[in-house]
Amino acid sequence: MQIEKNYDAYMKFIHTSDWHLGRQFASRILIEDQEYVLDQIIAYLEQHQVQALLISGDIYDRSVPPVSAVALLDKTLSRIGQLNIPVIMIPGNHDSAQRLGFAAQQLSASGVHIIADFEQMLRPVVIDAKGERVAFYGMPFNDPELVRNHFQEPVNSYEAAHCLLTEKIRQVMDVQSVNVLLAHCFLEGAVNSESERPLSIGGSDVVPHTVFEGFDYVALGHLHAPQYKGAEHIRYSGSILKYSFSEQFHKKGVTLVELDAGGRASVQNLPLKPLRDVRTLEGTLTGIVEMGRHDPNAHDYVLVKLADTHAVLDPMGKIREVYPNVLQLEKPGLYRAEGEVVAPGQALKRDEYDLFCDFFEQVAGQALSEPQKQAVKEVILEVRKEEQA
Amino acid sequence: MQIEKNYDAYMKFIHTSDWHLGRQFASRILIEDQEYVLDQIIAYLEQHQVQALLISGDIYDRSVPPVSAVALLDKTLSRIGQLNIPVIMIPGNHDSAQRLGFAAQQLSASGVHIIADFEQMLRPVVIDAKGERVAFYGMPFNDPELVRNHFQEPVNSYEAAHCLLTEKIRQVMDVQSVNVLLAHCFLEGAVNSESERPLSIGGSDVVPHTVFEGFDYVALGHLHAPQYKGAEHIRYSGSILKYSFSEQFHKKGVTLVELDAGGRASVQNLPLKPLRDVRTLEGTLTGIVEMGRHDPNAHDYVLVKLADTHAVLDPMGKIREVYPNVLQLEKPGLYRAEGEVVAPGQALKRDEYDLFCDFFEQVAGQALSEPQKQAVKEVILEVRKEEQA
Repeated sequence: MQIEKNYDAYMKFIHTSDWHLGRQFASRILIEDQEYVLDQIIAYLEQHQVQALLISGDIYDRSVPPVSAVALLDKTLSRIGQLNIPVIMIPGNHDSAQRLGFAAQQLSASGVHIIADFEQMLRPVVIDAKGERVAFYGMPFNDPELVRNHFQEPVNSYEAAHCLLTEKIRQVMDVQSVNVLLAHCFLEGAVNSESERPLSIGGSDVVPHTVFEGFDYVALGHLHAPQYKGAEHIRYSGSILKYSFSEQFHKKGVTLVELDAGGRASVQNLPLKPLRDVRTLEGTLTGIVEMGRHDPNAHDYVLVKLADTHAVLDPMGKIREVYPNVLQLEKPGLYRAEGEVVAPGQALKRDEYDLFCDFFEQVAGQALSEPQKQAVKEVILEVRKEEQA
Repeated sequence: MQIEKNYDAYMKFIHTSDWHLGRQFASRILIEDQEYVLDQIIAYLEQHQVQALLISGDIYDRSVPPVSAVALLDKTLSRIGQLNIPVIMIPGNHDSAQRLGFAAQQLSASGVHIIADFEQMLRPVVIDAKGERVAFYGMPFNDPELVRNHFQEPVNSYEAAHCLLTEKIRQVMDVQSVNVLLAHCFLEGAVNSESERPLSIGGSDVVPHTVFEGFDYVALGHLHAPQYKGAEHIRYSGSILKYSFSEQFHKKGVTLVELDAGGRASVQNLPLKPLRDVRTLEGTLTGIVEMGRHDPNAHDYVLVKLADTHAVLDPMGKIREVYPNVLQLEKPGLYRAEGEVVAPGQALKRDEYDLFCDFFEQVAGQALSEPQKQAVKEVILEVRKEEQA
């Protein structure tokens, strides 16, 4: 959905989520990458002259984030504060609500609104825009147990928890004005990625989009692919970076939302350019190393799938010379001869002799002689006999 | 030094330090005890109508405090905020400067001033009082390495570090007005306690009081006993609770400071009453248990020193029935007969037979018979022979 220019937008805000500050990707800490895209978000805030920034949870990657992540959030919020743009955020399932919510009351006076408990949930952040008022409600990440204990109500599912909480908000909200909700959950039918931590082990963690009826825009967090479900205004902005190889084809960005006086939302994806992209390379070792020598984006985080059908010596070391941020190596080719598919068990057996021949050739620079080949075969046969004895 | 009433006080503040929120004492978490005295500090703030609260470090007990400690600080700061009293604090050696300093800039606007780095150190919090201005400088806890790296100066001792930092402050400060400094260090010649973590292992961690010349009041933290050194205005408020048995005779409290127009400080200790006191009980098991039955403060945290010269069965269990918060048990009497001192090694040897006799009597309700005594002696001799073989 593109922004339509023929209506009177009176409120503009940016919706983002799933920053996961402090996250590691295959043991690389991504702080530098995260700062790089946060810079772009700050630039968008200025460029589009928005009235608010919404962050729908998973601000940090862990309940106790590393100091570098705390420092980055601190710096980012300070810079946004200098622009006089209010920030409204909720904790996600990766955040500690109580740690993130520290000094929330005092920070609120400075335009940083951290909605971290169910009392704050019922007190909207109200922003005036051209004389009209927009109320922003935040629903901190919650699970059935938390809601059951807090409200002493028989809540046994994520759906019931979200029904109860949205109902509590509807009871206090002014339906005549425009109402926006931030929430962090898994919408039924939405598309997940490998880098999201499941909300529930065993039980169902999904929530139907219908629980969010009555809000003019629902800014969701949790799923890392930007998408909407049920209605175009019930929407995930997606994460700010690709946090797994399963996300390599995602278009990461933030969502620019414009509301007209009737509360009708128009949205636009503002792309974020990563410092290092995440992608998969397929080919032979020789081909990939050759490609890497001329690849302008050789610093990307790459997963390499080797097509070689013969064993190769130290492929990771050779690839790293040209792709220093290679994070993962797979060798599907090794188990597959041209045109045929070999089950891994068979491949391993067939390979004992072949692997050694390849290895010898790589190390010695020449193939085994016939007597050598004979000796190797004899040794392998002898070992097999012993294994079977 | 008592407050003198015959001068024109124009600035009143309370100086406290070493809250150590989240601390444990012999595996008991002290959150409830801490909240109990923080309530009293808040009451003092109101009662004395002070213009500021100074907290000189070690607000938390650990760099990553438990959630309950974060929640208690959050609640405390919110309550003080409702009184419109500014809070000025620095991190101590137990705090993480970066974690504690999160969102310091925004919080400052709400009257919570966390001075957590050397840039903020040079920007005083200025409070107007009856037309005069008092500048509060905070020096975050620092060690020689930190100062050396930050300023790229050859700093090799705590003394040199504090010299350099106070000099930096003197360069920017207005000597015509009244200047207060918060710092967290070990003043040379001051009295320490068992519950303070040494600042330096091996090297000298002390700082002479002379480095603080030129300030009208120096609000120190680190040492847990209230005291001053060098001059009456260079002062430790002490911790808010007794955090070790070595502190049982400390008078814990906060320091009320009044400054006159010339910057002359008068101070008064405002006592804090603990929920449970910390004390040592000495006597026989029977005597202590009897005393406990009528002790109105039986919930105190106690260290029991048993005077019994014979072994007693399950003394901890028996004492806990009357003193539920007994934390430690010592048995100095066991190794000392009336009027003589026995070295522990000898005592143990002598005790093998005696201990068993006492044990038997306690369990069976009657003494060993002569044949039984003989049998026990034989067994012990046999075991000793085997040990020596």
